[in-house]
Amino acid sequence: MSTSYAPPVQRLVSELSKLPGVGNRTAQRLAFYILRASGEDAVALADAIREVKEKIGLCEVCFNLTDEARCRICQDTRRDQGLICVVEEPSDVIPMERTHEYHGVYHVLGGALSPIDGIDPEDLKIAELFARVTSPDGAVREIVLATNPTTTGEATALHIAEELRRRSPELSVTRLASGLPVGSDLEYADEVTLGKALAGRRAV
Amino acid sequence: MSTSYAPPVQRLVSELSKLPGVGNRTAQRLAFYILRASGEDAVALADAIREVKEKIGLCEVCFNLTDEARCRICQDTRRDQGLICVVEEPSDVIPMERTHEYHGVYHVLGGALSPIDGIDPEDLKIAELFARVTSPDGAVREIVLATNPTTTGEATALHIAEELRRRSPELSVTRLASGLPVGSDLEYADEVTLGKALAGRRAV
Repeated sequence: MSTSYAPPVQRLVSELSKLPGVGNRTAQRLAFYILRASGEDAVALADAIREVKEKIGLCEVCFNLTDEARCRICQDTRRDQGLICVVEEPSDVIPMERTHEYHGVYHVLGGALSPIDGIDPEDLKIAELFARVTSPDGAVREIVLATNPTTTGEATALHIAEELRRRSPELSVTRLASGLPVGSDLEYADEVTLGKALAGRRAV
Repeated sequence: MSTSYAPPVQRLVSELSKLPGVGNRTAQRLAFYILRASGEDAVALADAIREVKEKIGLCEVCFNLTDEARCRICQDTRRDQGLICVVEEPSDVIPMERTHEYHGVYHVLGGALSPIDGIDPEDLKIAELFARVTSPDGAVREIVLATNPTTTGEATALHIAEELRRRSPELSVTRLASGLPVGSDLEYADEVTLGKALAGRRAV
């Protein structure tokens, strides 16, 4: 970086470039935008960053992000508490909600099993999931495993499915379908996805 | 946006999506990153944004960004004060400095002339440039017009060049060369650039 930046600008560029997908060039562009923006806009952004770190924690039931003890979804009495969708990250709840097809509740693991990276079952909210399933007041009927269709996501789903089968044999444990994305083209499908789509074919 | 976000998260996503090139999805990704980041990192970013707005102003000589009355370049006695490079924005100083070929000083206009957008000479630091050129203590020899090679940048360069010729006929007024980017391929050059490269051809 050029020494012709004033130190506060350098500091902002350096902080911005820590963000994911933001290189030095993009950080400079964002910094110059912030410099040109109104004082109120910049302060609003700074305050929003501080506020989110101060006020947001994890839901005591499902470990989704929340500014209360329980998240909005867990508080919502219209949601089916007997249906739990297990996802890796809080950000995975949003696409599920966007389908408008899911009316159960969630359980956010906080990652996926990855022995190589030293992420073992104890590092995720897996014991907490088992506790929810076996709790005497709960009438959990089904667990939808919605971890990512990746190596670590699949391993996580497999591990949880096996444990659940052992602990609660009567529980229904399902996994999101893998297959061709809607609107995609067979010609450009990768062979693994196409193989999954074939294996998961259904009668029409 | 889903209503399942807690309000502080929604606020952060909304503030982040005001940044240039940051849509709603990217803003969500950045927000979740900030939520996962350490408290110190988030506070450092928030503080850097506030600090830059509090401390950074325009250099009283060249209108580049600075945290002092005069920017580092104007203060640098090794720089040639007789050579002024005129650019549109503070961000244009950086690529010029990166060449390590320019040892004069700058004049930042704060934009380019654009009658359609209502940007007239009075809205830019053009009068201030003329004052620098004609000031009795200054021995300005050359003005390098380094506005962008766009319609508005060219119009701005033309306007300033004409005015300078009228006011200071002895002053040398130059413009950055247009032509093929180094490392580019003739096959993929657009016709306007190639035309400029042809018109600006030099004896070898």
